[in-house]
Amino acid sequence: MKGSTGEDDLVARLRRLLPATSNAVHAGIGDDCAAVAGGKRGILSLLKTDCVVEGRHFSARDAAPAVGWKAACRAVSDIAACGGAPRFALVTCVVRRGQSGRWLEGLYRGLSRAGRTYGFEIVGGELARTEGPAMISVAMTGEVPRRNFVPRGGGRPEDVLYITGVLGGSMRSGWHLRFTPRVHEAGWLAENFRPRAMMDVSDGLAADLPRLAAASDTGFVLDPSCLPRRRGASLQQALEDGEDFELLFAVASGRAARLEAAWGKKFPRLKLSRIGRLVPRGTAEGLGLANGFDHFTT
Amino acid sequence: MKGSTGEDDLVARLRRLLPATSNAVHAGIGDDCAAVAGGKRGILSLLKTDCVVEGRHFSARDAAPAVGWKAACRAVSDIAACGGAPRFALVTCVVRRGQSGRWLEGLYRGLSRAGRTYGFEIVGGELARTEGPAMISVAMTGEVPRRNFVPRGGGRPEDVLYITGVLGGSMRSGWHLRFTPRVHEAGWLAENFRPRAMMDVSDGLAADLPRLAAASDTGFVLDPSCLPRRRGASLQQALEDGEDFELLFAVASGRAARLEAAWGKKFPRLKLSRIGRLVPRGTAEGLGLANGFDHFTT
Repeated sequence: MKGSTGEDDLVARLRRLLPATSNAVHAGIGDDCAAVAGGKRGILSLLKTDCVVEGRHFSARDAAPAVGWKAACRAVSDIAACGGAPRFALVTCVVRRGQSGRWLEGLYRGLSRAGRTYGFEIVGGELARTEGPAMISVAMTGEVPRRNFVPRGGGRPEDVLYITGVLGGSMRSGWHLRFTPRVHEAGWLAENFRPRAMMDVSDGLAADLPRLAAASDTGFVLDPSCLPRRRGASLQQALEDGEDFELLFAVASGRAARLEAAWGKKFPRLKLSRIGRLVPRGTAEGLGLANGFDHFTT
Repeated sequence: MKGSTGEDDLVARLRRLLPATSNAVHAGIGDDCAAVAGGKRGILSLLKTDCVVEGRHFSARDAAPAVGWKAACRAVSDIAACGGAPRFALVTCVVRRGQSGRWLEGLYRGLSRAGRTYGFEIVGGELARTEGPAMISVAMTGEVPRRNFVPRGGGRPEDVLYITGVLGGSMRSGWHLRFTPRVHEAGWLAENFRPRAMMDVSDGLAADLPRLAAASDTGFVLDPSCLPRRRGASLQQALEDGEDFELLFAVASGRAARLEAAWGKKFPRLKLSRIGRLVPRGTAEGLGLANGFDHFTT
């Protein structure tokens, strides 16, 4: 379960209302996806649901196929962040008056293109009407070899923190409607470098990095001067805008140099930035932190 | 994919925009659930998503735990209608201003009670805000032995049509908030009597029976005098109200007598009614149909 920024406490309260899960559940609430024992030996099934709401994640002016692409790729991004690949999707469209069958067809073209691109099949869903803003919710399953599953909370002190791509200005630049979920990169990382913790950055690094650290029971230090920013984005925007859908991950420090060399050969067109490291919980070294960002150490 | 009454054409159009599904997909759009090859040999994974919208499926005055129960049990009912049992759930809550953390906690208590009752685990989900009516979407997985999977479209002419329980007046009576999804009954039917077609009645028999017949490429005749009605419900209400969540199914006529005898012993407190039969497509015998219900034959 993932709440909006500031709702983590509420999520924690709701979580306590649920019974303890069985040993079929490998990862549950608090990870990017739920991971449950699948049928195949050595394979975990990943389960994810993600919704986009008109006025917040897209606007009435956005092209319907782009909205469909985004709705599907958000869930794909979460499945990738666990090291997995998407498999099946169910799509719930709650549309408002004024959204025609033609709009819905455009939406489905975008969903369908995402399916062809990332290898999942849309096998069902639901249509409903609302008087409020439209909403598209995508429920997706995926698979990951158990040995490749990367949780959000496996980081340890001294692990090196990396981020892919650039951050900030996603809404303004339109990146949020045409982003590339990092499926191939995450699968390659999981297979070859065993990140200890990984998640996709969707609420902004300033919200998501503390979640990774808290789940790992560590603190962190972040070097703002290393943050990769989209052209025109300020440091604050890179930290807080959200909708980046890049991978944030922690790798054992002994693997860092080899990873950096291999990455450049494998993915020459996608930037990989070392942005800081995990530290023991409660220490606040403040390494390289500009004034005003003290609350980013925990 | 299931559309509201009258949206079947739109669903058909959207369906054509999706690529053909692979041989991993045993049942897809148009069935109560998608059924896909699971990992375990001989087991199908069932996937279902279902949402309730404030103002349509529940009201602001309804108790939050009852709304949670309903939101979860609608998906359970669809999984049951395929002969399966629920396994895992993800819950998306889109709440509006004025719905407090306390309301959400009540909702989760209802969801959690449904999980304990029917044996599924809530493993994740999402919280979001809306300016419109609240919405709860439940994505659920289930399992069914492949030999027990009951599709919507396997009926043949001369199969006998049955319905469980009583129909009509679900909203008025409050049944829609505290109904019992027919998990045990459907599992027993699938194991012992191999219904050829089955679905749960959620949009009203007048909308859902034609869907079962169309999926089976048959017509049907319905005997209105046999329709089991909730106390106080008119024939029209029993046909059109919806939100009944009873099982509608077709059984080979040679098994009907044995089924009726066994049902009474196994489920003495739940009515089972023989309401008609499937006929070849295009024949319209009109057997027992009152005037005004001609459009119920196809």
